[in-house]
Amino acid sequence: MKKGRVTIPTDDNFIKETIDIVEKWGADAIRDCDGFTLPKEIKGIAEKVYSTYFVARGDNKWAKGNIEELQQTYLMTKHIVATEDILAINIMAGYFDQQVEPDSYHDVKEFWEVMDRTTGEIIELDKWTYNKENKEVTIKDAEKWHEYTVSFLAYCLWDPTQMYNHITNNWGDKPHDMPFDARKPKTNKYIYEAMHKWLDEHEDIDVIRFTTFFYHFTLVFNNLAKEKFVDWFGYSSSVSAEALREFEKERGYKLRPEHLVDQGYYNSTFRLPTKEYLDYMDFQQQFVAENVKKLVEIVHEHGREAMMFLGDNWIGTEPYGKYFESIGLDSVVGSVGNGTTLRMISEIQGVKYTEGRFLPYFFPDTFYEGNDPTIEARENWITARRAIMRKPVDRIGYGGYLSLAYKFPEFIDYIGGVCNEFRETYNIIDGNKPYCGIKIGILNCWGKVRSWQTHMVAHALWYKQIYSYLGVTESLSGMSVDVEFISFDDIKNNGVPQDIDVIINAGDAGTAFSGGDKWLDTEIITKLREWIYNGGGFVGIGEPTAALNEGHFFQLADALGVDKELGFSLSTDKYYKTELDKHFITEDVIEPIDFGESQKNIYATKENTEIITYENGEVLMSANRYGKGRAVYIAGLPYSPQNSRILMRSCYYAANKEIEIKKWYADNIYCEVSAYLASNKYAVVNNSSVKQEVTVYNGEGVGEKMILEPAEIRWMEI
Amino acid sequence: MKKGRVTIPTDDNFIKETIDIVEKWGADAIRDCDGFTLPKEIKGIAEKVYSTYFVARGDNKWAKGNIEELQQTYLMTKHIVATEDILAINIMAGYFDQQVEPDSYHDVKEFWEVMDRTTGEIIELDKWTYNKENKEVTIKDAEKWHEYTVSFLAYCLWDPTQMYNHITNNWGDKPHDMPFDARKPKTNKYIYEAMHKWLDEHEDIDVIRFTTFFYHFTLVFNNLAKEKFVDWFGYSSSVSAEALREFEKERGYKLRPEHLVDQGYYNSTFRLPTKEYLDYMDFQQQFVAENVKKLVEIVHEHGREAMMFLGDNWIGTEPYGKYFESIGLDSVVGSVGNGTTLRMISEIQGVKYTEGRFLPYFFPDTFYEGNDPTIEARENWITARRAIMRKPVDRIGYGGYLSLAYKFPEFIDYIGGVCNEFRETYNIIDGNKPYCGIKIGILNCWGKVRSWQTHMVAHALWYKQIYSYLGVTESLSGMSVDVEFISFDDIKNNGVPQDIDVIINAGDAGTAFSGGDKWLDTEIITKLREWIYNGGGFVGIGEPTAALNEGHFFQLADALGVDKELGFSLSTDKYYKTELDKHFITEDVIEPIDFGESQKNIYATKENTEIITYENGEVLMSANRYGKGRAVYIAGLPYSPQNSRILMRSCYYAANKEIEIKKWYADNIYCEVSAYLASNKYAVVNNSSVKQEVTVYNGEGVGEKMILEPAEIRWMEI
Repeated sequence: MKKGRVTIPTDDNFIKETIDIVEKWGADAIRDCDGFTLPKEIKGIAEKVYSTYFVARGDNKWAKGNIEELQQTYLMTKHIVATEDILAINIMAGYFDQQVEPDSYHDVKEFWEVMDRTTGEIIELDKWTYNKENKEVTIKDAEKWHEYTVSFLAYCLWDPTQMYNHITNNWGDKPHDMPFDARKPKTNKYIYEAMHKWLDEHEDIDVIRFTTFFYHFTLVFNNLAKEKFVDWFGYSSSVSAEALREFEKERGYKLRPEHLVDQGYYNSTFRLPTKEYLDYMDFQQQFVAENVKKLVEIVHEHGREAMMFLGDNWIGTEPYGKYFESIGLDSVVGSVGNGTTLRMISEIQGVKYTEGRFLPYFFPDTFYEGNDPTIEARENWITARRAIMRKPVDRIGYGGYLSLAYKFPEFIDYIGGVCNEFRETYNIIDGNKPYCGIKIGILNCWGKVRSWQTHMVAHALWYKQIYSYLGVTESLSGMSVDVEFISFDDIKNNGVPQDIDVIINAGDAGTAFSGGDKWLDTEIITKLREWIYNGGGFVGIGEPTAALNEGHFFQLADALGVDKELGFSLSTDKYYKTELDKHFITEDVIEPIDFGESQKNIYATKENTEIITYENGEVLMSANRYGKGRAVYIAGLPYSPQNSRILMRSCYYAANKEIEIKKWYADNIYCEVSAYLASNKYAVVNNSSVKQEVTVYNGEGVGEKMILEPAEIRWMEI
Repeated sequence: MKKGRVTIPTDDNFIKETIDIVEKWGADAIRDCDGFTLPKEIKGIAEKVYSTYFVARGDNKWAKGNIEELQQTYLMTKHIVATEDILAINIMAGYFDQQVEPDSYHDVKEFWEVMDRTTGEIIELDKWTYNKENKEVTIKDAEKWHEYTVSFLAYCLWDPTQMYNHITNNWGDKPHDMPFDARKPKTNKYIYEAMHKWLDEHEDIDVIRFTTFFYHFTLVFNNLAKEKFVDWFGYSSSVSAEALREFEKERGYKLRPEHLVDQGYYNSTFRLPTKEYLDYMDFQQQFVAENVKKLVEIVHEHGREAMMFLGDNWIGTEPYGKYFESIGLDSVVGSVGNGTTLRMISEIQGVKYTEGRFLPYFFPDTFYEGNDPTIEARENWITARRAIMRKPVDRIGYGGYLSLAYKFPEFIDYIGGVCNEFRETYNIIDGNKPYCGIKIGILNCWGKVRSWQTHMVAHALWYKQIYSYLGVTESLSGMSVDVEFISFDDIKNNGVPQDIDVIINAGDAGTAFSGGDKWLDTEIITKLREWIYNGGGFVGIGEPTAALNEGHFFQLADALGVDKELGFSLSTDKYYKTELDKHFITEDVIEPIDFGESQKNIYATKENTEIITYENGEVLMSANRYGKGRAVYIAGLPYSPQNSRILMRSCYYAANKEIEIKKWYADNIYCEVSAYLASNKYAVVNNSSVKQEVTVYNGEGVGEKMILEPAEIRWMEI
């Protein structure tokens, strides 16, 4: 109980203190931190030593010697209006010339595309020329007052993560890591040789922490060396002339630049994925999986472990993708910002263990005199613990400079307690699944491949447009329900999975998360109608099932009992406005409900729609019966303990299982219960930093009052 | 000065008091009020006597004797889901059987349509039957879990206006006025004979106030005898078997029921009008104009005047439609709720005079003991006066029961003053056009035909979804600018009119007022881009130019310098967020700006976008240069004196005419100046009910300080 499952960083000349921390925290693994090499003495202090390894960067000698094998990316210029019939476009305008460079090594007419964005037409190849001296594309016979863009293939001169760190930390004349491409023939051979060599040269390292493999998520800087575009899921920087040609050979059709640049949206996960983009993802995932597998096999040959860092150059190795398990990795490590990111890591299949890197990172932005890093640590732990109770990662760890953290003894003590609490919890759970009252399917265009990653833009960053939906996964991450991510194609091909009680559809209209035109697919909509009508539960959040067609905006308006007024049906009187005095869904509500960005213009379409919250002339929460099934509507669900409870109750209500909710249940919104029937134990956790009085219901629904200390986890025998 | 241009109602046994009012108000015309007949003695008191006349109702003997010639309407059932492969739909569910009755006199297979609303397909005629006993349509071989609707032709049994009054006022067993159809052969003949007869029988009446002609705007009640659907512009109740057959003969193609029921939106003016609907409107306008012309000719034959009431059964006689002037009416009268409705009446061409009926109506809801009707009267007058200063109606008037108003002597005095102020103003203006600094074009799908009627649903009613746009016409109604309403087709066919300085596009995305897919018409967008680029001004309000396509949501994003984030471009960094310290547009602002419903997720697309208001992470007002032109964005513009000023300044700024604004200008937002150069006079009005200190600028831009009394109008010599 007092040792193991914990990874720590170390620091220069910090052996004695590292040993102290190893003891205090029960750490059994030590990792290096970006920017310095592990000292020799570290060996022996812990059972395992991790070291970062870069497959496709960090070897500029190779990169410079094989400059045509650098990684590539597709970029699109701004829209430029033609005011004359000749239009010259400076394609690098707004881009950072230290990061990218137009590729004129390959035939620009084969890989570039000039588009008339007013008509959507491709400009014929003989109508434009590229001058590589001034980096201008000139269009002749341009249509005046049309807008044009150039989509061009570029070489990547600087790895985005290193670029970010380099610029942020003023690394001055430190060389720029040039990223080379595993798909290009010489480099492909080279990376395996380099792997062997590195392993030979680093015999003390037990765990190779790949950071990560071949292709970085899309991160493009602008001409002022500031971030211009960031998409944690983006495939733009995985393209190359070779990949595009290989794709055509393998898939039987040629990808257009447009399939990648996508009008400048670059196939953001909010876009409805096109067939071509899904094909391309599949094509790259296959390639990456096959080649990463070879690296892993080399690591295993050398008797070491292969660990993947979930982030940076992770494109193609999506852990929920269909080729991931075939890679044979030993483990995945990722950063834990909240419950959702914890589950995103802990639910990964096909590895021996998962590891979460907890916050705060031991950096000067938190560890400075006068600040109390324990506050952030406690928040992070309480938030992540909810998810650990449902499905723990196998290890936890910390990153940064240990010497910084060491100056805060209270923090050192607190983390010691966290490590013990984690180990105790992990041991009791013992790999068993906790009690789940119902099973929920999150329905969107992506399904499984984006499990626990819905509505993310740049990993863990807050955006005004997403927080009202992120609350859904964050709530579910610690809720005693089963969760599965399903796509519209899953529904189309296989119907709703047998064991699903409730389907959640959450998102803004037209996005991949709401579903857009997928709702106009007759097979999908009828399968869902039938399923709900026959007793299924449906929870719609924001603009669920939205696609204006044939008299509805919400295509499941009939099931939801609400629709959204877009102006077209203002002439229709809207009578149903009476808020119910009370409702099962809001029984635990103790403060005004926070709908986040909320929605406007939602109205009840039926006399029987149960209006739960009605404000300012609009429905914000409601429920409706549809045959034997039920549907619930919520205008937005940012994360909060209360909203988590509202979502849980909405799901139980939709599932027609209200009477089941008070099993392994806490009536106080700040407390949650997880029951481990196989271990004959259950835990009551206080997710707040103050004392809580709570009635806890056991598996028979019998309540017992108790008082929990701030942040307490209390284990009870069943 | 003391007499004329004023119409009053009278009352039963009220001759003496009527004479008193005639003198106090200088009235020269007396009208009847709904529900009673003018007493004989009235003749001689005033110069003219008006009487209401109904062309197509109020003669149940005729109606009952020609039941197959009643008016008809197209109705659509609710969407009904098929849970079995046979689906029976009760087509009258939700409708009021005293108002409408399915038409099985004509072949239901010729005029009805059963739609699969899941696929959008028409169900073949042999797949459904209608049982007129139980009023059910039965569909065989229905696709399970598809939704179906029935569009059916119905007879109208009750005139909607009489129905409304009847039900509202509990008229008990008073007969229901059955509306008959001027297009049907026997009735067509009959209405002219009836007109002759009535004129013969009512020799004392000078002015026939048609209330109105053939077809009522759409007003449908539900099974609880409450309003179900109301569209002041709706053509649904102008259809008939005869009209549909005639349309086919004349236009060469058959209209589908769907062209009228339009998915249940019934071609609301918020919908982008289809070619078929525009054809149908034109077809009916032609018919109505031709036949109303005959009625007017009969009136003239009898030596009387023909006045049209703008409302009720006005469909087909839209005063800004292309056939209106050919009718030869003497006058139009309409209700004045504000400046917009005043201009809607006063701008009508092709009549000898226009008349505005002012508020309050002399009804017990305002004229009860303890209430001061002067308050509403003053508000109404101040609001409407702004518009009168720009283009007066030729007469004003009041309605209701004179005996009610007579009990409020202060009110009688106040209106006496209003009448004098109106006559004085009218005489000074003397038919001349006041000074206009710039000319503005309101651009939407409707253009001229809906002049001063944009964003209306039920005439003058407030809706949450429209008030943020109604402020545009309301502001313009009293602003010293010229206003023209232009359609996208006008732009496509003829470009932007030469004399336009600024185009305003205001509305929610996808509506006819914003323009929806019209913005994807290459000719339209390029003509506008060219026009702005070469110096034109553009003001976008709400979601202007919105139609997601080729990388923009706002198709004129480049000109506007802003676009709206729909989730697809979250990955793109948005840096331009710095609000300017001051701007020409907000120079007169004295209180927080009210954007009404406002907009979310608007962001600046350019470094040079002038951000005027930025709140909560979004741009609410901005300006941008585009070539020699300028564009302004405003998130919403409900009417207020301050918003009116903001719009005026936005237009001057967009037109690049900032230096011209201080001509005939008041620097206090509650005051406005109108200059009548032909009369060598200008007026300064105080639109508020408190004293105002203001600097007034003359035509040379020279300012003079003055203090205006509450609501004062001060006339000055130039």
